[in-house]
Amino acid sequence: MEIRITRTRNPKKKPDENSLVFGHDFTDHMFIMNYTQGEGWHDPRVEPYGPLQLDPSTMVFHYAQETFEGLKAYKTDSGDIQLFRAKDNAARLNQSNERMCIPTLDEEDVIQAIATLVKVDQDWIPKAEGTSLYIRPFVIATDPFVGVKASSTYLFMIILSPVGAYYKEGISPVKIYVEDKYVRAVPGGIGFAKTGGNYAASLMAQVEAGKKGYSQVLWLDGIERKYVEEVGTSNVFCRVGNKIYTPPLQGSILSGITRDSAIKLLRSWDIEVIEERFTIEQLFEWHRKGELQEVFATGTAAVISPIGALSWQDNEITINNNEIGQLSQRLYNSITKIQNGQLEDSFSWITSI
Amino acid sequence: MEIRITRTRNPKKKPDENSLVFGHDFTDHMFIMNYTQGEGWHDPRVEPYGPLQLDPSTMVFHYAQETFEGLKAYKTDSGDIQLFRAKDNAARLNQSNERMCIPTLDEEDVIQAIATLVKVDQDWIPKAEGTSLYIRPFVIATDPFVGVKASSTYLFMIILSPVGAYYKEGISPVKIYVEDKYVRAVPGGIGFAKTGGNYAASLMAQVEAGKKGYSQVLWLDGIERKYVEEVGTSNVFCRVGNKIYTPPLQGSILSGITRDSAIKLLRSWDIEVIEERFTIEQLFEWHRKGELQEVFATGTAAVISPIGALSWQDNEITINNNEIGQLSQRLYNSITKIQNGQLEDSFSWITSI
Repeated sequence: MEIRITRTRNPKKKPDENSLVFGHDFTDHMFIMNYTQGEGWHDPRVEPYGPLQLDPSTMVFHYAQETFEGLKAYKTDSGDIQLFRAKDNAARLNQSNERMCIPTLDEEDVIQAIATLVKVDQDWIPKAEGTSLYIRPFVIATDPFVGVKASSTYLFMIILSPVGAYYKEGISPVKIYVEDKYVRAVPGGIGFAKTGGNYAASLMAQVEAGKKGYSQVLWLDGIERKYVEEVGTSNVFCRVGNKIYTPPLQGSILSGITRDSAIKLLRSWDIEVIEERFTIEQLFEWHRKGELQEVFATGTAAVISPIGALSWQDNEITINNNEIGQLSQRLYNSITKIQNGQLEDSFSWITSI
Repeated sequence: MEIRITRTRNPKKKPDENSLVFGHDFTDHMFIMNYTQGEGWHDPRVEPYGPLQLDPSTMVFHYAQETFEGLKAYKTDSGDIQLFRAKDNAARLNQSNERMCIPTLDEEDVIQAIATLVKVDQDWIPKAEGTSLYIRPFVIATDPFVGVKASSTYLFMIILSPVGAYYKEGISPVKIYVEDKYVRAVPGGIGFAKTGGNYAASLMAQVEAGKKGYSQVLWLDGIERKYVEEVGTSNVFCRVGNKIYTPPLQGSILSGITRDSAIKLLRSWDIEVIEERFTIEQLFEWHRKGELQEVFATGTAAVISPIGALSWQDNEITINNNEIGQLSQRLYNSITKIQNGQLEDSFSWITSI
């Protein structure tokens, strides 16, 4: 794919690396490619970062036909730039696209587009401890038409945001509210796709949990309302004795790439990982019996979030004395060190660009 | 509310009234109002219809925090302009907004905004048989921020589209596929809200049904996959003997305004309407016993869509010889005649402007 590059004449002032906020600052350029029925994906280009002009009838505003991804680029101590699991993100973008009736992209082209844009804006990759360049590829439906159908035109775009450590004081345990009123997703729905509707559907529970003093919600399955599914927009793991439990991917759960990284690392350390459904009652029972050693969530933004407290139906339990668990910490250290080049990439997760 | 009006200097050529397509043409003006946290909704204005300028990080592109409504304006034979059930649409917009964590609007302001915009573009209201001016109010989240939270800024907009009769040859029965693989919504989710995510989630089933030769799908409940819920984006009714069955509103079903109009009209005709859950098996059983006289869907776009055939797990049944049922026709005639002023508005559904 030949990508046309138009450089900005007005580069922005870069934010201070030590006070970066997640998702607020964007770099000097963006990648755009168009899709038109018949013509396919075409006109890949890097342009100065700037606003989109869209007709108010544009379908994405009305029917949310949209998908996205999230990944990060890092600058190693030797100055190399590396992407973490870009191939997996490109593959997942296409899984989301298929579910949402959006034409799939050539996955090599997606990686090339990311690499090209990151290289153009490489001076924006922050170097301070815990920082990285967050990469947001996304697709939106652009037909100017008010009626429910799959759009015949789309934009695929990539924007970049220098981000700080998700938790400024390093990773620290969060308090989670077990949601038993609202439902995020069910089998047969769109829960496994990275599409706006899932996130919009989750806002109310997040807001209500926030008012009660919790950082996030733990989602139960939408059918029986008892099986543990996700935490906020992250996957969830429990350490019970020396075994790790995590819910299996069964259509309603996002196939987290950090989830997969955690599973592969844990297994490489000879720790048993059991991908089986378990109930919230079971989780509380593990705690009652003193077997629940760690609970943590995995996601691109925070990598590993230890869960220090869980509230369910007026019962609140404290996990691991509200301290970071040993495995949570080990996973966090290993993943971030592979990401920034301080640890060997023995799983071939890195794309050097 | 004081609405600032800026008129276009370049009015567009109006499309031919007799070949209008649904949702393709838009009028000369649009309504916009901004929301900013702290300041609330402000700066209501009518402007020349034109593109929005939005940062690529705008939240609606990523997290689908968006709501919309659909209603119609009609010109009566005497030249009056009337809106159909505008108050109910304004109320439902707020129900959707609440579920999606979008600040609610003053419902009187919404009606005033619609009335003002329709009056500015009143020459666009088509007069041919079966035509109307479709009104699309919608709200989108506009924070330039890549992170999952409720936005702190929004746009409320209204656009107008002159539309033809949904079915060019009058109402004619459609073939429907009973969907048993994909799920649209479950209790605890967002199914009752008019928000993009529900429509995006429905596309795949619609596309697959289309490939099999069906116009739309009939959705079953997402929990037991047996109760009848909706047809496409419409509510569904069955006439069994002289009784009418329709699924009750239990969180996963959109509270259709045409649904409510149909129920109120039927009851005013002394026809029993039973809002109770029924299974797809029950529906096929009614057919087997020769009791299923009519099945029809209700929605703003088509008003009444008779269903002529239903396919479920390799069984296809033909309903009422694939002809329009007597009650379907009577409802269609009554609702459209109230809408265009040819029948008395005994339910106070009309807002004259």
